Amino acid sequence: MIRSVSNRFPGMAATLPAARDTLPVTTDPDVLAGYAHDRAEGAEYSLPAAVARPRDTEEVAAVVAYCAEHGIPVVARGAGTGLSGGANGMASAVVVSFEAMDAIVRIDPDERVAVVQAGVVNDDLRRVCAEHGVWYPPDPSSSPWSTIGGNVATNAGGVCCVKYGVTKDYVLGLQAVVGRGEVVRLGRRTAKGVAGYDLAGLMVGSEGTLGLITEITVRLRGARAAEHTVVGYFDDISAAGQAVTAVTASGVVVSALELVDRYCLRAVDEWKKMGLTDGGSVLLLARCDGPGQAGEAEAEVVLDCFARSGATWSARSGDETEAEALFMARRLVLPALERLGQVLTEDVCVPRMLVPEMLGAIERISAEHEVHIASLAHAGDGNLHPMVVVPPGDGAARRRGHRAFERIVDEAIRLGGTVTGEHGVGQLKMRGFADEVGPVVLGMHRAIKSALDPVGIFNPGRVFAAEPAGDDAT
Amino acid sequence: MIRSVSNRFPGMAATLPAARDTLPVTTDPDVLAGYAHDRAEGAEYSLPAAVARPRDTEEVAAVVAYCAEHGIPVVARGAGTGLSGGANGMASAVVVSFEAMDAIVRIDPDERVAVVQAGVVNDDLRRVCAEHGVWYPPDPSSSPWSTIGGNVATNAGGVCCVKYGVTKDYVLGLQAVVGRGEVVRLGRRTAKGVAGYDLAGLMVGSEGTLGLITEITVRLRGARAAEHTVVGYFDDISAAGQAVTAVTASGVVVSALELVDRYCLRAVDEWKKMGLTDGGSVLLLARCDGPGQAGEAEAEVVLDCFARSGATWSARSGDETEAEALFMARRLVLPALERLGQVLTEDVCVPRMLVPEMLGAIERISAEHEVHIASLAHAGDGNLHPMVVVPPGDGAARRRGHRAFERIVDEAIRLGGTVTGEHGVGQLKMRGFADEVGPVVLGMHRAIKSALDPVGIFNPGRVFAAEPAGDDAT
Repeated sequence: MIRSVSNRFPGMAATLPAARDTLPVTTDPDVLAGYAHDRAEGAEYSLPAAVARPRDTEEVAAVVAYCAEHGIPVVARGAGTGLSGGANGMASAVVVSFEAMDAIVRIDPDERVAVVQAGVVNDDLRRVCAEHGVWYPPDPSSSPWSTIGGNVATNAGGVCCVKYGVTKDYVLGLQAVVGRGEVVRLGRRTAKGVAGYDLAGLMVGSEGTLGLITEITVRLRGARAAEHTVVGYFDDISAAGQAVTAVTASGVVVSALELVDRYCLRAVDEWKKMGLTDGGSVLLLARCDGPGQAGEAEAEVVLDCFARSGATWSARSGDETEAEALFMARRLVLPALERLGQVLTEDVCVPRMLVPEMLGAIERISAEHEVHIASLAHAGDGNLHPMVVVPPGDGAARRRGHRAFERIVDEAIRLGGTVTGEHGVGQLKMRGFADEVGPVVLGMHRAIKSALDPVGIFNPGRVFAAEPAGDDAT
Repeated sequence: MIRSVSNRFPGMAATLPAARDTLPVTTDPDVLAGYAHDRAEGAEYSLPAAVARPRDTEEVAAVVAYCAEHGIPVVARGAGTGLSGGANGMASAVVVSFEAMDAIVRIDPDERVAVVQAGVVNDDLRRVCAEHGVWYPPDPSSSPWSTIGGNVATNAGGVCCVKYGVTKDYVLGLQAVVGRGEVVRLGRRTAKGVAGYDLAGLMVGSEGTLGLITEITVRLRGARAAEHTVVGYFDDISAAGQAVTAVTASGVVVSALELVDRYCLRAVDEWKKMGLTDGGSVLLLARCDGPGQAGEAEAEVVLDCFARSGATWSARSGDETEAEALFMARRLVLPALERLGQVLTEDVCVPRMLVPEMLGAIERISAEHEVHIASLAHAGDGNLHPMVVVPPGDGAARRRGHRAFERIVDEAIRLGGTVTGEHGVGQLKMRGFADEVGPVVLGMHRAIKSALDPVGIFNPGRVFAAEPAGDDAT
């Protein structure tokens, strides 16, 4: 696997310190195939020219220095669980995979800080933190596989971010390889700090377009209190939407508020026979984790919101096993849908109080485009994941699904929302992103990209095009 | 006050829409004098050429467009409470004061969002939020006067940020005038969003060097629970430092943890006769605001930490009047010291667990440089404010104070800290900032500055020099 690259990339190893004459880079087509695309459906991809699997920051710097010198595009890759095509291979590019950089460098429970290499898997960090009595909150659905580096590059969200924030809220500092291979430390490791621009924050969510993140210093929290779960079934999506609005307006800050619609429930039932659709059409899953009696009081308020919004059935549970079973059902939605065909996944986010309006718009768009749109939502954040399942080989359904999604994106922008709540722009949201921010702000993005990536090697053409459409230089 | 500027700045009014032929710009020297400097001691300043007091974003854009066309520097100014010289006047510059843009545009308690013009005073926003049952947490000591725009430009901290974070944690989006006068909206108003670079976050803490912030959308919290106060007196700074470490390690997330040393206590006593020094040498003030019984339990833990660390006297109080009196004493420290002479204020921040080590270093440096250094600290964050009082006219003491502060900055960097926790770089921390981040990261700052401020008009020469020292272009 690890071999000298001197035959295919003459001189790449020479950028390394003298003691190392090989770099873990491969051009084996069988290996390359495993790095050609992430989990996005419908995004373009190609076999890259090579895959590098560096073991430390020095090797990352060597690869970048070589690529900068030769104008070779560099695509950063975590676990490949992305949903926007941002880590897909491109022809002539080197994909830099961080799988070999999976060391948890330090957990400091007193200082509430952890330092990890970019390739550390999210759940691994969370598990080790728990052993030290501390907690790293960001919990994307991909947490059993996705890496902290990938989470940082896309500013990943998750279920508990309705109360605890997203990845950005936990990144204090990072080490990155930028420009022509320079290694820099950005941000800090103190609780506060305002020295200069927030360049660490700028790297978060930059999707590999400004450099390669090699090590991350994250903020931790103390172990969380026990969670109380409240579940409610509703007859239709509109009643569930009203319940979400009621919870948001109640003042209770829930630690999860997830919506699973009838299409999702049915898909899981068909697979796992969990009887999920027996209770009703739409399921809301809430959690409250206020300490002690406060958590119980919060759960009572949420239960009342569900009842007042017309829940056909609702219940509280302090029983972690039962609660876990229902949250497990939610996690099974995507694999359950993938059994039925290709799943196109949306990721719009609207102001929380407009969730019912957005859900209504999705129903209308679904009818107009003659596609079933299954909806899963981090409803408490206003972050919706409408999904279209395309039966294998049904090109017409696929085209209708894509058209419906473009309409959903437009509607989210119209409601003051954003085209991507947590998946990133990648390739799939480039049109929507440009529409959302407009030409002047897009120009600011291009200016920053040119300033920090003068050679133009970092994930070029992703998130936004290098030049305005119609420009001569395109 | 408001008059046509056409005599002194020919054509500036022409950049406005036809309906307006005057801009609120003045060149009256008596008025200019009031905008010459902020509250930093020891930073350079000059009378600016003019002061603009725009009434809306359109007028800000007109001023910036004019200045960009004519290469005139633009200095943004909130209330002038800054402590680093960042808003000081400079010769030939236009100071843009946001005092006339003080409208609270919208408070949305359900969505937990407020929209304010840049000139809204912090306490005014907090008061109006309270009337709506919501809370805007950032609480810098300057909150009765400082503006949200100024808070955003410096990423202001405060007392409660040990639990609730700093200004950056509350900025969702903003409107700004950038480049050559373009008006842009950055960020978002949804709870989540990952569309493109975090340009709103980049503007936060940029100290007026990347554009002028005209309107801010902030995240709000629900009304906070009642606070429990714990106070403790200690014989020396080392025991107090150990108590801070014990609280940090206890797992309790306090909502305030302030340290006031004997020099500060004595200065307040000499002024207000509060008897603060009767109890001991160093005062720690902690607050806990966990909901209901949780808050009481937290206060008990803190009290125990104080006792175990050798407090000579400690007590809990749920009585807001008594607690407020002690926190008031803390707020009186700066004016009490200013009665005695010029106050040089430091702002280093170190990893929380190293607070005792940093306090020890400050004592050593104080002795070596023969200056009394009074220390006030947001101790729970590791953010220390050592202060030197220079008796009027004592140039030698002043020079010793500055030398001592340079040593303190070096020591903070050595401990893995930062040269500024919440005051900003401005002019006073430029040397320390450059040392802290190093030449490559400083180069990234310059590249971003050039990219977003191509004419170089926004607060030029502040935070960092436009060119590396020794460069021909300097």
